[in-house]
Amino acid sequence: MKIIKGGVTAPKGFLAGSTSCGIKKSGKTDLALLFSTTPCVTAGTFTTNRVKSGSVVLSIERLKKGSAQAVFVNSGNANCCVGKKEIKDAREITSLAARKLNLKNDSILIASTGIIGRPLPVNKIKNGIKGLIQNLSKSNGTSFAKAIMTTDTVHKEIAVEINIKGKVVKVAGAVKGAGMICPNMATMLAFFTTDAVIEKEALKQAFKESVYDSFNKITIDGDMSTNDSAIIFANSMAGNSVIKKNTRDYAIFLDAIKFVAKELSRKIVLDGEGATRFIEIIVKDAKTENMAGSIARHIANSNLVKTMIAGGDPNWGRIAASAGASGVKINSGRMDIYFGRVLVMKNGAGVNVSRMLLLDIFRKKEIKIVVDLKSGKYTDRIWTCDFTEEYVKINSEYEA
Amino acid sequence: MKIIKGGVTAPKGFLAGSTSCGIKKSGKTDLALLFSTTPCVTAGTFTTNRVKSGSVVLSIERLKKGSAQAVFVNSGNANCCVGKKEIKDAREITSLAARKLNLKNDSILIASTGIIGRPLPVNKIKNGIKGLIQNLSKSNGTSFAKAIMTTDTVHKEIAVEINIKGKVVKVAGAVKGAGMICPNMATMLAFFTTDAVIEKEALKQAFKESVYDSFNKITIDGDMSTNDSAIIFANSMAGNSVIKKNTRDYAIFLDAIKFVAKELSRKIVLDGEGATRFIEIIVKDAKTENMAGSIARHIANSNLVKTMIAGGDPNWGRIAASAGASGVKINSGRMDIYFGRVLVMKNGAGVNVSRMLLLDIFRKKEIKIVVDLKSGKYTDRIWTCDFTEEYVKINSEYEA
Repeated sequence: MKIIKGGVTAPKGFLAGSTSCGIKKSGKTDLALLFSTTPCVTAGTFTTNRVKSGSVVLSIERLKKGSAQAVFVNSGNANCCVGKKEIKDAREITSLAARKLNLKNDSILIASTGIIGRPLPVNKIKNGIKGLIQNLSKSNGTSFAKAIMTTDTVHKEIAVEINIKGKVVKVAGAVKGAGMICPNMATMLAFFTTDAVIEKEALKQAFKESVYDSFNKITIDGDMSTNDSAIIFANSMAGNSVIKKNTRDYAIFLDAIKFVAKELSRKIVLDGEGATRFIEIIVKDAKTENMAGSIARHIANSNLVKTMIAGGDPNWGRIAASAGASGVKINSGRMDIYFGRVLVMKNGAGVNVSRMLLLDIFRKKEIKIVVDLKSGKYTDRIWTCDFTEEYVKINSEYEA
Repeated sequence: MKIIKGGVTAPKGFLAGSTSCGIKKSGKTDLALLFSTTPCVTAGTFTTNRVKSGSVVLSIERLKKGSAQAVFVNSGNANCCVGKKEIKDAREITSLAARKLNLKNDSILIASTGIIGRPLPVNKIKNGIKGLIQNLSKSNGTSFAKAIMTTDTVHKEIAVEINIKGKVVKVAGAVKGAGMICPNMATMLAFFTTDAVIEKEALKQAFKESVYDSFNKITIDGDMSTNDSAIIFANSMAGNSVIKKNTRDYAIFLDAIKFVAKELSRKIVLDGEGATRFIEIIVKDAKTENMAGSIARHIANSNLVKTMIAGGDPNWGRIAASAGASGVKINSGRMDIYFGRVLVMKNGAGVNVSRMLLLDIFRKKEIKIVVDLKSGKYTDRIWTCDFTEEYVKINSEYEA
């Protein structure tokens, strides 16, 4: 596997475009389109929030058949909590785009991100569609990644190349996500492209595993969005022999897509609102993977842990308290905690360690915290970021 | 029921004292003692954190028999994550205090609050005990409430008087709690006193119900402490006819203790770290009380909701998103949201309301948010506070 230049348009046959239609007051690009010149096998995962954007509802419906050819994205408005209008608007916008792209209506998906509770400015968007389609190009992968941003400070994309029995196959992705605002609300959107020839079920399975291992294992502020959408398109243009489940080719493909998803999820955490540090929480030797994951997530979402790291204070007591509060029945008398490789708590009691050493660890941009339960053989990890005054500032700013 | 002056020493036969032994660098009082001149029926509830302070462990053990006569409190050090030393220290300190008070060892409970992971300065504390006991007095209720503070900005106490078949009975309490630091970690401690004559089981039941309805329904930062302790002493000195379960007298007593507990829990939220606003989240017409409570708690712990209120921005979309993310299977298309009495979302869609009106509601010190699920007949509520940059500042401050 090799990292190559570019984003979602790196794989063969994918075009992307962006334009500004005026949803963002700043005038920045707020419409984006990803289009494959040939039909694709597709798969997706979406927010489990019981309050879902109409855009999410429509995409879930259209993805049932497992194929599509394009996705229309708007940023600046979540198309959520507006009532029946949400789905009506999503249908109307995608119909117009489909007509201009010469696609069937159900071959185009939609994703939205931005403020909740305001109707989409449908006319503005419709006016923007023509320019958006004219902008479609092989060279606009990065503009696509930029147009889907809200509070993100950097655009996020990556592409890799693998070899499937002598054929070059590319896998790429672009994401947005930094918390949940715009300035009121944002979310995670992820779009993956590949020119692989792959069976529908194999793609679905590989994508599910990749998302589980990446986007499902990060947290910035613990608040779940109404709009999270991750979608993958595979357009078969690499001409490789078809990838089937449980084969060596599948394993190679899975590796690539997992890598892309993990790198993109890492970029989201690094760009967390107000964040100054990337934190890896590893919980090991738990009775089940689920227990390890629950504890890791609980620690990663603890405001006390996150503010402590923002302050550069190596107070492992907060880690222990958070692990104990996770709801998992741990034996605190067996629990060890490490900051980086340094043991700071052994069997539930503090270890005498140089505070200077710990302060050094906490000064680094990336911090690893390991909780060893010594009670089983399962490990899990969560990536998170620290919690600074800037986060509160970003999220409490009065929105006129 | 009548609110009367004073705190834990308002009921007959209770003395309190405080002193400074040097745990707090500021020199503020850090040892406190609450003592009844006669034996008491006692009950308590404690943190469910799997990591518990040795002080909590010892008090739970001693409370099993349902009687005690005093509680020793230190603030500034949680006596937690120190290993076996925690219980040893707690025993040693309480033994010394018991000897000086002429009590059996198991008649004195202990509670600690403050930083985690540092051994109690046992010698300092032992040196302080003599002065602490000499300080015991009927007039030191308020000094007691002050000595248990950590990051609290105000001391918190209340006392009421009720009439049980012609006899005056008093119920009082003092609490500390404002978040979880010192500057690294603090917690909620609550001490109740009453001179009522009451059966052990009746006291236990009444106390459990009161705590459920008060301290269990507040949240400041969602982080659960290792040291939460709530203890009640009933010393029978009012000379009323004994209060038994399921009687009219019990109902009167329950009312009083519930009132005291609710008022004290309210004071904690009002004193939340960095908080500028008191927020009541009510979830109504849910299928079960548990569902209502889960949604209310999820909203109350959402950083996006709390920062929004800090910013004075009436963005109900965040409330809807948080309700949907609570894990409870709600029908978002039936959900209504009110700010105060103003309907802002009806059946999952925004209502056209004057923004000026909403901004006015959000400018008030106390804000009520109602989520109506229209799916059943159960209601629950949680009290919380907003989330300001000051919270992050308090909790990220480097601790030397």
